[in-house]
Amino acid sequence: MTIRVLAFDIFGTTVDWYTGVSRQAAEVFGELGVRLDPGAFALEWRDKYLPSMARVQHGEREWAYLDTLHRESLDELLAEHGVDLDEAARQRLVHAWHRLPAWDDVPDGLQRLRKSYTVAALSNGGFALMTNLVKAANLPFDCILSAELARTYKPDARVYRTAASLLDVDPGEVLMVAAHGWDLAGAAAAGLRTAFVERPREKGPDREADKDVDAEFSVHDFGELAERLGV
Amino acid sequence: MTIRVLAFDIFGTTVDWYTGVSRQAAEVFGELGVRLDPGAFALEWRDKYLPSMARVQHGEREWAYLDTLHRESLDELLAEHGVDLDEAARQRLVHAWHRLPAWDDVPDGLQRLRKSYTVAALSNGGFALMTNLVKAANLPFDCILSAELARTYKPDARVYRTAASLLDVDPGEVLMVAAHGWDLAGAAAAGLRTAFVERPREKGPDREADKDVDAEFSVHDFGELAERLGV
Repeated sequence: MTIRVLAFDIFGTTVDWYTGVSRQAAEVFGELGVRLDPGAFALEWRDKYLPSMARVQHGEREWAYLDTLHRESLDELLAEHGVDLDEAARQRLVHAWHRLPAWDDVPDGLQRLRKSYTVAALSNGGFALMTNLVKAANLPFDCILSAELARTYKPDARVYRTAASLLDVDPGEVLMVAAHGWDLAGAAAAGLRTAFVERPREKGPDREADKDVDAEFSVHDFGELAERLGV
Repeated sequence: MTIRVLAFDIFGTTVDWYTGVSRQAAEVFGELGVRLDPGAFALEWRDKYLPSMARVQHGEREWAYLDTLHRESLDELLAEHGVDLDEAARQRLVHAWHRLPAWDDVPDGLQRLRKSYTVAALSNGGFALMTNLVKAANLPFDCILSAELARTYKPDARVYRTAASLLDVDPGEVLMVAAHGWDLAGAAAAGLRTAFVERPREKGPDREADKDVDAEFSVHDFGELAERLGV
């Protein structure tokens, strides 16, 4: 079956959340005199990401979009560190996830790929968050898709199948592009094809990112993906 | 309340469906020797648009997306004219609605408006149709929204409210931009703000388009809308 749509994971695959969140946290912490290491803080915050979504995905709580989960895990994390921040600072931190820098290869790679494919953002970030982030980073996606449209989270099969259905293609005509094994395993289980992008700096300088993930394509950046797809 | 999002109707407001559909119909009819006037055909086909959607909106039939409604009304129309076309020709005609030219003022107007606002397509066209159309016309929307996401059709309030909800804004922070009174009346009833764009050639040279529509803003093109919004 021919690939017609490329669906891109965003956090870690398309944008550098570690650098973006830790820099914005450093600004907030600096202004308010908070003595937390921003890089470690970003990692600890992200560690709460998968467990918080799993509770929604498994029906243990009702649908809540990612800003809500980020806020809850932020509140937990600050409490664990005994740090009290005011409402405005907490909101700034939650919104840090709306403004993240793309990896260097992304703008050109997407421009090249979109000449031959429909390129869609397919993230666990909410629809508004994704729209804000893609606009701020000026990324040439053809459309925004979000787990919010299926009211559950990746790796639930409904997210991938909703994306294919909205684009009126078969799941097997969609290539999921991601830097995480759990995302690609979910996509494959839903009948999508898979491309792994290795992002060794995703979790900063000291923590190892996913590697050697099982996928149909395995590349180092979006430009190499375009080459492999022959476009 | 401040306007944060501009939601644009597409058929007639942003793209010239009359010219696009009648030209593509002329090609199909020319190749197959069909003696129908392409302009009159486009108008008659479009006349079946609102009634076909109203049946879904009022719960008289289950959700069906616009390609399905277009196909059903095409089959009806061809039968009325005693014209038999093969499956491939019917599919080409349905897909004519996926490839329509933008009005001349649209690309520059959108570029100007998107510097200050989130600009969204909000159409009764399906999500896939809209993605195809916006990509083919190279229009710089920040995101695609569709009545399909609410599984009903404009002017049902759920369509406008779903759009606001997905973009995480209040309905009163959304300005609906449309060339049709029925669309703006629906938007206003759902709590949105309204801008009327007069498109006198929307229904071709011989039929009158909507004019003197009640709205907060009334303009002749997207550039004038940008001026009125001070951007």
